[in-house]
Amino acid sequence: MTDTIISSATKELKIGFDHPFVIIGERINPTGRKILAEEMKHGDYSRVERDALAQVAAGAHMLDVNAGIPLADEPRILAEAIKLVQSITDVPLSIDSSIVAALEAGLEVYQGKPLLNSVTGEDERLEMVLPLVKKYGAAVVAISNDEAGISENPDERFDVAKKIVERAADYGIHYSDIVVDPLVMPVGAVNSAGRQVVHLVKRLREELKVNTTCGASNFSFGIPNRKGMDAHFLSMAIGAGMTSAITNPLHEEVMQGVMAADVAMGHDVNCVRWLKKYRQPVEEGASARAGGRSGGRRRRG
Amino acid sequence: MTDTIISSATKELKIGFDHPFVIIGERINPTGRKILAEEMKHGDYSRVERDALAQVAAGAHMLDVNAGIPLADEPRILAEAIKLVQSITDVPLSIDSSIVAALEAGLEVYQGKPLLNSVTGEDERLEMVLPLVKKYGAAVVAISNDEAGISENPDERFDVAKKIVERAADYGIHYSDIVVDPLVMPVGAVNSAGRQVVHLVKRLREELKVNTTCGASNFSFGIPNRKGMDAHFLSMAIGAGMTSAITNPLHEEVMQGVMAADVAMGHDVNCVRWLKKYRQPVEEGASARAGGRSGGRRRRG
Repeated sequence: MTDTIISSATKELKIGFDHPFVIIGERINPTGRKILAEEMKHGDYSRVERDALAQVAAGAHMLDVNAGIPLADEPRILAEAIKLVQSITDVPLSIDSSIVAALEAGLEVYQGKPLLNSVTGEDERLEMVLPLVKKYGAAVVAISNDEAGISENPDERFDVAKKIVERAADYGIHYSDIVVDPLVMPVGAVNSAGRQVVHLVKRLREELKVNTTCGASNFSFGIPNRKGMDAHFLSMAIGAGMTSAITNPLHEEVMQGVMAADVAMGHDVNCVRWLKKYRQPVEEGASARAGGRSGGRRRRG
Repeated sequence: MTDTIISSATKELKIGFDHPFVIIGERINPTGRKILAEEMKHGDYSRVERDALAQVAAGAHMLDVNAGIPLADEPRILAEAIKLVQSITDVPLSIDSSIVAALEAGLEVYQGKPLLNSVTGEDERLEMVLPLVKKYGAAVVAISNDEAGISENPDERFDVAKKIVERAADYGIHYSDIVVDPLVMPVGAVNSAGRQVVHLVKRLREELKVNTTCGASNFSFGIPNRKGMDAHFLSMAIGAGMTSAITNPLHEEVMQGVMAADVAMGHDVNCVRWLKKYRQPVEEGASARAGGRSGGRRRRG
């Protein structure tokens, strides 16, 4: 099975079908966070620092770092933020920008092997980003849209992912260094959004043999109880074979969903992590019923 | 896709891949409930009545009725309980016993088309139960164990299910009237329990084309935070294609998992049920981030 290896200066992480699900903390992103945007713009990274430490403490395996601030010097800010985050945590990072110069600025200062976020299927983007991936020996998130935008047809999105994987191969980039984001639609608008993800993750895994990621919270956009929905969307997606997600590890429900899915996928051997988190001094009336039920079944045997 | 039709005197229910997940309320079962057992034994069905109404109010689509009380007249008690429950609710029932005479007593009084719970792959059970299924025009839960007990190998459990489906065909029972329980192992003891379910549900659906059910709470037997685990186990199983479960609808976490999975599978069109349950007068800080995120992606296009 395919392993995507990402690292910091001191720590290696594998994204893969045989490993626990990888949570990429999404918080260091000024989009929609005015105060953070202002602070980052003026060189104040105190909130970035707090967000980094809090996400790692909450269980993030990687952190996404984005500095997308309108009219700001994004390459400089992104590089500074990455240096700061790498100085206080040892988790590998995802370097997140839609501006190629910012991606390169991030790559230049990064210590280890980062995940570059992202390239799309647009020819111009492929020609600009893939050489960087190769030059810096990074892995890359491949987002399944192209010049025509985001197709509502999941199999067209698969075709875009396939194009990216093939084009990457032309640049000497192995498919194990590509993590495909099949694009999660908001289920409030696209009724088949969940089935699309199950279908695409299966195809991506079986046909392209790539690892996958998603912006999990897109799924619940526009509907209430988003955390509850995100949590169950993630456990379903993990059951279908999704191997990482960019999400908020500070949301307890989301973390519980990921932890439960890790147990269910056999990636929390002997339920060690689950027990550590949820075991209480006295267990709450646990076993009688289920015990009775299995007991009843055995009687029949 | 296969529909299993179950009914009460006035209400028809479809279990199937294209329908919302069917929750079969598990509470009317004296196993491990001493007070209930004593009451039922002495003809007091007041708690059965309350359990029936509470489960239906909580969203159960069917109710399982079990009267397995040691040294009691189970056929009489089961028949009385079924008559009582049918007199106060209109949901279809699952008639649950390991004693064939009790199953038949239940079938005799039942109004509509019940789900008989259950037959195993043991030859003796098949020869006793399948003629009843045919005679009364019922549907039946097929449990994937046989004379050799419960195999730890999921593919052997599949073979048992296949044997039951084939034997039923010999009796003129269509596979659409068989709901297979692939047997959920406790993940605390069997590390691969979740993957087994995903694998088996897929095979049962694709190769035998049957609907599926399970005793969902077996999965979390012996580990803490059982409701949280059950909820995520169920959403994963539904994502994999499971179509019903015998579970406790009074557990809010479990119901949320099933509702979320129904949304994700496209079986809660326009999220109507989800919105009804979770929409609040003022929505909590919902949309900015995800909106920002999609926005960011669109910018790249």
